[in-house]
Amino acid sequence: MAAVTKNRLEAFSDGVFAIAITLLVIELHAPEVGEGGSLARALWAQWPSYVAYLVSFATIGVIWLNHHRVFIQVAQVDGPLLVLNLNLLLWTALIPFPTNVVAEFLGQGGEHARTAVAFYSAVYVLLGLSFGSLFIWITHDDRLLHRLPPPEVVRAARLRFTLGEGVYAVALAVSFLWPPVALALHAAMALYYAFDQASVPATPAPRVGTGG
Amino acid sequence: MAAVTKNRLEAFSDGVFAIAITLLVIELHAPEVGEGGSLARALWAQWPSYVAYLVSFATIGVIWLNHHRVFIQVAQVDGPLLVLNLNLLLWTALIPFPTNVVAEFLGQGGEHARTAVAFYSAVYVLLGLSFGSLFIWITHDDRLLHRLPPPEVVRAARLRFTLGEGVYAVALAVSFLWPPVALALHAAMALYYAFDQASVPATPAPRVGTGG
Amino acid sequence: MAAVTKNRLEAFSDGVFAIAITLLVIELHAPEVGEGGSLARALWAQWPSYVAYLVSFATIGVIWLNHHRVFIQVAQVDGPLLVLNLNLLLWTALIPFPTNVVAEFLGQGGEHARTAVAFYSAVYVLLGLSFGSLFIWITHDDRLLHRLPPPEVVRAARLRFTLGEGVYAVALAVSFLWPPVALALHAAMALYYAFDQASVPATPAPRVGTGG
Amino acid sequence: MAAVTKNRLEAFSDGVFAIAITLLVIELHAPEVGEGGSLARALWAQWPSYVAYLVSFATIGVIWLNHHRVFIQVAQVDGPLLVLNLNLLLWTALIPFPTNVVAEFLGQGGEHARTAVAFYSAVYVLLGLSFGSLFIWITHDDRLLHRLPPPEVVRAARLRFTLGEGVYAVALAVSFLWPPVALALHAAMALYYAFDQASVPATPAPRVGTGG
Repeated sequence: MAAVTKNRLEAFSDGVFAIAITLLVIELHAPEVGEGGSLARALWAQWPSYVAYLVSFATIGVIWLNHHRVFIQVAQVDGPLLVLNLNLLLWTALIPFPTNVVAEFLGQGGEHARTAVAFYSAVYVLLGLSFGSLFIWITHDDRLLHRLPPPEVVRAARLRFTLGEGVYAVALAVSFLWPPVALALHAAMALYYAFDQASVPATPAPRVGTGG
Repeated sequence: MAAVTKNRLEAFSDGVFAIAITLLVIELHAPEVGEGGSLARALWAQWPSYVAYLVSFATIGVIWLNHHRVFIQVAQVDGPLLVLNLNLLLWTALIPFPTNVVAEFLGQGGEHARTAVAFYSAVYVLLGLSFGSLFIWITHDDRLLHRLPPPEVVRAARLRFTLGEGVYAVALAVSFLWPPVALALHAAMALYYAFDQASVPATPAPRVGTGG
Repeated sequence: MAAVTKNRLEAFSDGVFAIAITLLVIELHAPEVGEGGSLARALWAQWPSYVAYLVSFATIGVIWLNHHRVFIQVAQVDGPLLVLNLNLLLWTALIPFPTNVVAEFLGQGGEHARTAVAFYSAVYVLLGLSFGSLFIWITHDDRLLHRLPPPEVVRAARLRFTLGEGVYAVALAVSFLWPPVALALHAAMALYYAFDQASVPATPAPRVGTGG
Repeated sequence: MAAVTKNRLEAFSDGVFAIAITLLVIELHAPEVGEGGSLARALWAQWPSYVAYLVSFATIGVIWLNHHRVFIQVAQVDGPLLVLNLNLLLWTALIPFPTNVVAEFLGQGGEHARTAVAFYSAVYVLLGLSFGSLFIWITHDDRLLHRLPPPEVVRAARLRFTLGEGVYAVALAVSFLWPPVALALHAAMALYYAFDQASVPATPAPRVGTGG
């Protein structure tokens, strides 16, 4: 049915993840230093860029980890899965943009910082929804999987996604009050997902030519 | 004969597609906000950039899907195919440029918006021609394919390409009257191709080391 | 001995080629249009950028083709080959820079155009030398190859590289007189190499898991 | 346990290395040439950019070589290894930023040059630590390796990493006195690692579908 195999879907997705995570750096620039100014201080003054770089890097890294963790259980790709996966890539590839907005406006504080972090958080809410819908499609029956994991495992995994989405929504709300706290929530989510590796029982993929 | 295997051709093409689709984001920048201005309003004012990002992202995604759909049936690569494929990559890799032109000038309306969308549409016409010529070469006899699909299937697929090309040409003409309508046509084409996945019977590729 | 397998060397090189070829587009920008100016004319005025994009795209595409053509015959990778290959990647990845210089200064004509195209040509001379030294190392005895091709084939291939290098040197000299002619020489070389596909007898690579 | 296989970890890492090494070029721009100025002289005046490009290119190339040399011996990937590898990618992907700082400020000499090279060196110290911790984790017992290499080999390899880290620390200190000497140290380290290929006995990886 679907014309794109799982291997090529994974390779293309990995390419987009690798590029998006590496492109984050091009928003970091050598600062301008005024007459008699200190380069060290100018570099230091760019701290919001570094924070934004770190949080976004961790998030894309974790998306890559989770993407692989989900797809290792997928046996077949169908049309809706392709479209849902492109939708996930759309929001992931977008991350350098809100990252740039946070880098520019977080340091100014006030209204601008709140709007910037809220914008960043809103993209993460949509990112979470796009991952969640991909996950629901994959697990909604057993056509796409090697074998359907036990219902309680699926339920636990869906719960985890729902909780994550909830935290992103909270971060969005918190952005309007304390932007740095919202960013810290995003960083915490990335760390949580990074260390939450082992909870889905990984069915080793059958040997299908592992591809790149 | 040809020195590049199908696997490496696909991997290189996928790389270009993944990079082009992810590079689209670098034309999205944090807006400048004047004294007393609102960042939210400034972000909103960039809507033409977001529209251009979405349409171009969907289009490159669909080129990737169709590229794979065609190549899954290819058994062998010859010299003209390599050159025709590089030609397709040339126009695909160019997309961020007309996207940027639309993002800059669509919002201004008037003559500039018309020219910008016409330029964008002209690149799509050439893109469609480059894909069409690749497809015609592949299907013009059975040397490159595992087996030639039934003539009515080839005819249907060629018809589909011709229709697509026709819509791009119409979009080019419409650009000079109603630029947003032309953009909507491009978006509709991407959606059409995305959902038209199943119509070419996918001959599963023989196991040839699936590569990345 | 060498810790990097041929597969991973090819995959890394292909990645660099795909990124360099796709990065060329980020030097193409939406033009500035003055009050009452025409966007169409402003787009047209950027023709040197388009010429530079085309020639550089064709050249990187041809480097990719030739790289694969050479490596399909390689059985083993050693330390010097790794370093010589990184040297080739260094000059290939640099191409967007002289491309940008040509795009900026070709249209101004005069001294600036001459210097820009000479700079561009000088990078191509070094690029040719880096490819030539890689090729000489690979063919200098039979440790790295599946089997050493007949001496007359190696001689013919070396002659072809030497001729290519000669044309690049001529283009460098010509840059100081007629910059557009020098660029045309570069374009001609890319076309020549593209269509000269079949002249090295391709020993099909043994099945080693073809990778991406 | 871990949901990401070694193949996909390597492919993702290679992607990030290839992109970071190729992105270095986007900090090289066509220079501005004033009225009556010489383009040749303006290109020449950008020498700090070229030095920075060369040193950073060599360094990322060497990271790629060493990454492969280490991972060819890895049989299994666990959670901490994934996080430690993402940490290495974080610092590698960052390199274009300090490279840009050196390119901008090295030519000015004085305080700015010292700060710029010290900043560059500090990133390299962290990069070295991130690679060292990855290496220590991999070799700290035999769960992750095909078979643990003899203790004296591990000891020698750890010593080599420690020496490298020491040189980076020295380069950091030297930055505050003679910035060009510090840069030369970085270049020397890249060359040393490039030619030090053969010292770890490469256990050929078992055939596991070589991937990209």
